[in-house]
Amino acid sequence: MREHVRHLVDSRRFQGAIIAVIVVNAVMIGAQTYPGVGSNPVMIAADRVVLGIFVVEIVLRIVAHRGRFFRDGWSWFDLLVVLVSLLPAAGPFQVLRVLRVLRVLRLISAVPSLRKVVNALIAAIPGIASIGALLVIIMYVFVVATTVMFGGVSEDFATLGRSTVSLFRLLIGDGWALVVPVAEQLPYAWPLMMLYAVVSTFVILNLFIAVTTEAMYSQREEVTEPTPTEERILAEIAALRDDLAAARRDS
Amino acid sequence: MREHVRHLVDSRRFQGAIIAVIVVNAVMIGAQTYPGVGSNPVMIAADRVVLGIFVVEIVLRIVAHRGRFFRDGWSWFDLLVVLVSLLPAAGPFQVLRVLRVLRVLRLISAVPSLRKVVNALIAAIPGIASIGALLVIIMYVFVVATTVMFGGVSEDFATLGRSTVSLFRLLIGDGWALVVPVAEQLPYAWPLMMLYAVVSTFVILNLFIAVTTEAMYSQREEVTEPTPTEERILAEIAALRDDLAAARRDS
Amino acid sequence: MREHVRHLVDSRRFQGAIIAVIVVNAVMIGAQTYPGVGSNPVMIAADRVVLGIFVVEIVLRIVAHRGRFFRDGWSWFDLLVVLVSLLPAAGPFQVLRVLRVLRVLRLISAVPSLRKVVNALIAAIPGIASIGALLVIIMYVFVVATTVMFGGVSEDFATLGRSTVSLFRLLIGDGWALVVPVAEQLPYAWPLMMLYAVVSTFVILNLFIAVTTEAMYSQREEVTEPTPTEERILAEIAALRDDLAAARRDS
Amino acid sequence: MREHVRHLVDSRRFQGAIIAVIVVNAVMIGAQTYPGVGSNPVMIAADRVVLGIFVVEIVLRIVAHRGRFFRDGWSWFDLLVVLVSLLPAAGPFQVLRVLRVLRVLRLISAVPSLRKVVNALIAAIPGIASIGALLVIIMYVFVVATTVMFGGVSEDFATLGRSTVSLFRLLIGDGWALVVPVAEQLPYAWPLMMLYAVVSTFVILNLFIAVTTEAMYSQREEVTEPTPTEERILAEIAALRDDLAAARRDS
Repeated sequence: MREHVRHLVDSRRFQGAIIAVIVVNAVMIGAQTYPGVGSNPVMIAADRVVLGIFVVEIVLRIVAHRGRFFRDGWSWFDLLVVLVSLLPAAGPFQVLRVLRVLRVLRLISAVPSLRKVVNALIAAIPGIASIGALLVIIMYVFVVATTVMFGGVSEDFATLGRSTVSLFRLLIGDGWALVVPVAEQLPYAWPLMMLYAVVSTFVILNLFIAVTTEAMYSQREEVTEPTPTEERILAEIAALRDDLAAARRDS
Repeated sequence: MREHVRHLVDSRRFQGAIIAVIVVNAVMIGAQTYPGVGSNPVMIAADRVVLGIFVVEIVLRIVAHRGRFFRDGWSWFDLLVVLVSLLPAAGPFQVLRVLRVLRVLRLISAVPSLRKVVNALIAAIPGIASIGALLVIIMYVFVVATTVMFGGVSEDFATLGRSTVSLFRLLIGDGWALVVPVAEQLPYAWPLMMLYAVVSTFVILNLFIAVTTEAMYSQREEVTEPTPTEERILAEIAALRDDLAAARRDS
Repeated sequence: MREHVRHLVDSRRFQGAIIAVIVVNAVMIGAQTYPGVGSNPVMIAADRVVLGIFVVEIVLRIVAHRGRFFRDGWSWFDLLVVLVSLLPAAGPFQVLRVLRVLRVLRLISAVPSLRKVVNALIAAIPGIASIGALLVIIMYVFVVATTVMFGGVSEDFATLGRSTVSLFRLLIGDGWALVVPVAEQLPYAWPLMMLYAVVSTFVILNLFIAVTTEAMYSQREEVTEPTPTEERILAEIAALRDDLAAARRDS
Repeated sequence: MREHVRHLVDSRRFQGAIIAVIVVNAVMIGAQTYPGVGSNPVMIAADRVVLGIFVVEIVLRIVAHRGRFFRDGWSWFDLLVVLVSLLPAAGPFQVLRVLRVLRVLRLISAVPSLRKVVNALIAAIPGIASIGALLVIIMYVFVVATTVMFGGVSEDFATLGRSTVSLFRLLIGDGWALVVPVAEQLPYAWPLMMLYAVVSTFVILNLFIAVTTEAMYSQREEVTEPTPTEERILAEIAALRDDLAAARRDS
């Protein structure tokens, strides 16, 4: 019995059907943002059918894989998303509608190539943790400094939260207009913010480089085809072995 | 007869002449955006001459290459562009004027080095399909979520379409000003949008890296010159073969 | 005695405790930006305790390491930050509060992995000094040129300082709106500023590339694992040596 | 006589002095943007002295190097900059003041490391000519298309020139606000401009990659130190040669 369930759950057809249901559900969730669609009885019924399919799928996978199901982070993610959808709509309606959006992310766990990409992205994070921490420290110093210095002059730097938003916008290259009213009263605001932009950009650049070199050197081990020069080297060594074999035959 | 046509069509002079006509036509199409130029009888006549040349060229190429013509995507592109130009101006005038602009793109199919670059760009797409799909999924989740959450507060997030535009602008680093009125009523809008910016930027960064590493490893196979160290290795092996040859002569 | 101090100062537990104090202090410094928190007597006392711990730590490290302390740039940085905190608040209050923020940067000197990242960032600077100087020269030329040409037309280019700010914003991709009023009177402003954007972006791109290639070639020496092809080459040479050994046994 | 001049011109001290004069002149040119400084008699005299030094330097270099002087692009640049400064101020005053700024660029020709960087930048251009041409063609198509389609709706797309500026700003990530009024009347403006942004960004990305891979593979030939694995290979081959030498001694 359990063997049959496992066979079903691991079959390409079953997984393809689930992916199709997730895509249909994603379209439904998008359609429900238009007024009246969400309260349409057909849509409400379809939503319940989809949720039922998801519950059955999770149960079948737990039956099939047992302990193995709970050892995989992606399974936990699927389970959580379905459990959240089962919660009664007693809380504020908006929050529940928003969390339903997370079901779209199940597409990532259901499609192997997407899961692989996300795993690779997550695997890249530890390698950049130090540079990321450095960036956070530098941003924090500037957030506190601008709050203290510009807080009395501009609303955009009045609290730590607002300074964080303003400095984040400066980092992205938007919102230098926020500095204009500050600089009218505190002329050193421009050089300070330009220093911030240069330093943080330089750190982010190095964060990018760290990710890139990491990616290249991890790919480096997957490349098994020799370059043209490496092939020449291999051919030379092969010829040498032939020469040696000939020498042994001679003597 | 057909041999002569093929000879003509494949000649450098013929292809150069066609490129010249495309460039002249591109200038004409630009000039026609100025008032009065498009209705100038000389311009109308020139336009017909250019179109005639294009029709003749396509016909000659079909005669010369027959089946081979239709096996090349670029030939289909050229054919389509010319056919569109032949359509009667019965539909709305503006649409036809706009589609005439596509004739400029024939420059890409006519110049081999440009065609090669575009082919390389298109060849890079499958390698980034997974990351591209991930980006689309993440954007879709945020588009639906912001429509549901911010839709009642700001016109810029009122529908899926408007949210898509707003989130695209946030991605590009423009339009954080759109979040300001939302955040006044929903303070969690700032952290949510910053999360969006960080996640989507990280995914795009990895999309860039995927393209770069792909490009480097494809170039890797074209590099046939050894590095200085590889030359040392080859020289060492050559010396070894000489040693072995000397040893054979000795014994 | 001195040996005991050195043992204490170099211990993991001591260093961990100092890091904890720095983090607590960073949170305190942030909290003090909220009105009333800075003048809270508990906060003032806590601030003095933290400063006392920092002074004791620096003194212990000087006792323990003596000359070695002063040969390390990071130690000088720690000393300077503490000395600045000890200065009497006789000067303007705001300036002192701002400089206190620098204590957060002590986190970099206290955590080895962060110190390593910053050292790497600083080490990358000499390699890009030439391109950086080129960028400064190009920006200076455009700053003077726009001040002379646009100064009479727009406030944003009235002085060298304001032109620098405006051109910095153009570089970052923000603030093209500043060019709009100028271009209404001087139509050549657009092509000139587009030339500036293209040239400076191209130089910055090459600055990025210089940093990246530097980083890759410095990492290149740290990679000790052979690629699959290099392992094949090594295996081939090993087999060759075995062949030769067999040949010697034969003869 | 000519030998003495050449000795002088090629001496480090002479070149250092010229660099110093260029730097002083750059500061003077900057100072002259402040009102009253340019008409200061001391400044006018200093300007003439600097110009005199430049003329003498060029003459000495022509005397010293003769034909070789005119075979170097940088010498032509220096000559042109000095000749422009010698032109009478009969034309509009502003234009002459602006061209004087170009003297700052002489710093590039005078400092060898800067000259090398610029030469490298210029050498990178042919390798990206195809992608650059592709970008120009794509931009031209969108410029004409937006002028035709949006010209009647928005001033920002009224002529080819204005569309070029607007699309350049979109490319840089600034100025999406320009599309807002257009999209109110022509809703397809958003998807069209997003298509433009994606396509042009993808082409520019590939332009960057082309520059990067070019830079890496040109640096590749300058790296003469073997990697750790290459050193292992070289050591293995050396050991093999020793083995062979031992075998020859044996027999």
